[in-house]
Amino acid sequence: MNRGELLYEGKAKKLFRTEDPDVVRVVYKDDATAFDGKKKGNLPGKGEMNNRISAFFFRYLAKNGVDNHFVRRLSPTEQLVRKVKILPLEVVVRNRAAGSLAKRLGLEEGTPLPRPVVEFYYKNDELGDPLINEDHIAVLRLATPDQLEEMKNIALRVNGLLMELMEGRGVILVDFKLEFGLDRDGRLLLADEISPDTCRFWDAGTEEKLDKDRFRRDLGDVVEAYREIWRRLGGETRD
Amino acid sequence: MNRGELLYEGKAKKLFRTEDPDVVRVVYKDDATAFDGKKKGNLPGKGEMNNRISAFFFRYLAKNGVDNHFVRRLSPTEQLVRKVKILPLEVVVRNRAAGSLAKRLGLEEGTPLPRPVVEFYYKNDELGDPLINEDHIAVLRLATPDQLEEMKNIALRVNGLLMELMEGRGVILVDFKLEFGLDRDGRLLLADEISPDTCRFWDAGTEEKLDKDRFRRDLGDVVEAYREIWRRLGGETRD
Repeated sequence: MNRGELLYEGKAKKLFRTEDPDVVRVVYKDDATAFDGKKKGNLPGKGEMNNRISAFFFRYLAKNGVDNHFVRRLSPTEQLVRKVKILPLEVVVRNRAAGSLAKRLGLEEGTPLPRPVVEFYYKNDELGDPLINEDHIAVLRLATPDQLEEMKNIALRVNGLLMELMEGRGVILVDFKLEFGLDRDGRLLLADEISPDTCRFWDAGTEEKLDKDRFRRDLGDVVEAYREIWRRLGGETRD
Repeated sequence: MNRGELLYEGKAKKLFRTEDPDVVRVVYKDDATAFDGKKKGNLPGKGEMNNRISAFFFRYLAKNGVDNHFVRRLSPTEQLVRKVKILPLEVVVRNRAAGSLAKRLGLEEGTPLPRPVVEFYYKNDELGDPLINEDHIAVLRLATPDQLEEMKNIALRVNGLLMELMEGRGVILVDFKLEFGLDRDGRLLLADEISPDTCRFWDAGTEEKLDKDRFRRDLGDVVEAYREIWRRLGGETRD
């Protein structure tokens, strides 16, 4: 693989140019951050797990009709994805109250929601990624009304597909975060990653957390939990 | 006036029963609170101004087709209103960035918004009245989708009417908060108060604040500013 120019370094991934201007190489890092970067860690093996799990989910979604940026996995920690301009929005879907929602609405963590909740957060570190509504998105011109509608529809389809998939593996999909981008032709595309860094997964039997909350809340065995998710997905790690 | 039983005491108003089970008497108090009750004050004359201004706005809105709970003013500090069960929602309409919106979106205070923004806040002191979206309202069953739509439509109509009214008096309507209730038949009705306690009013020439921000930000001359709003509305205070 040609080691192309670094295009962007985020908290958990690096993006590199490739010979194809429409494709970028993603390197998943072992770095972890939480609480707006106030908490930092390095978790050997996390990058590999997230790369594998994310590739698995994107492939599964594409097979089930949800187009996304994923092209192919390159190595244990690398994948190729279509180049998009990421919209500064985090789209969160929730099936149970947890994290900031439990706090915001005064619900006990784990409370099942009578229907999925979709939320938009403004990706802006300085502002602490605040919750925003559709009028805020309109006045900040973060997305058009059509894009907003499409993101909500895709997010709910992803939720249905992932919930069903994980249920079959004994895992509750509590909530997850998606990001979207626009390709060169302005087409909206599901992007970023889908992994235990961006989803809350609970064991269906014990409700044990198998996701980044183990890092946020100092529960230990973070990468072991990510490996358990990968194992439940039938994953192998030979290449 | 028969001194009926106290039904409810809020931060700025008291509600009393009347002989008519569908009508309650509101007494506007001089007490002021801000920042979830952390800041407290007593502002002699505020209750009278808010009673007069609120009565004026409710009458004006009714004349212009926006039904509301107002029945009639009784005295300098009292008015009769239809009895409703208040929904635990604050409906905020904004024309310019100020207060929590300026902070949330990182906009300079006073930035004109390209279109009015409607926000819903969950009236819950313990939770600090958090911003919520329509999915949160649905899962908490705070309002039905129809009620939500109706509240948004009424809020935008009120905005249009009040903006025009205030513009003619040399005042910018920066933002305001509405509350709604359900009457005995379950009909949605605009309720609570509309006053310098619940609106941001700026002098159109100097952008001087003529509202509760004078109290929140220790700018002084709070009641004087409320009196100025009343004066601009053509108000007199003889009865």
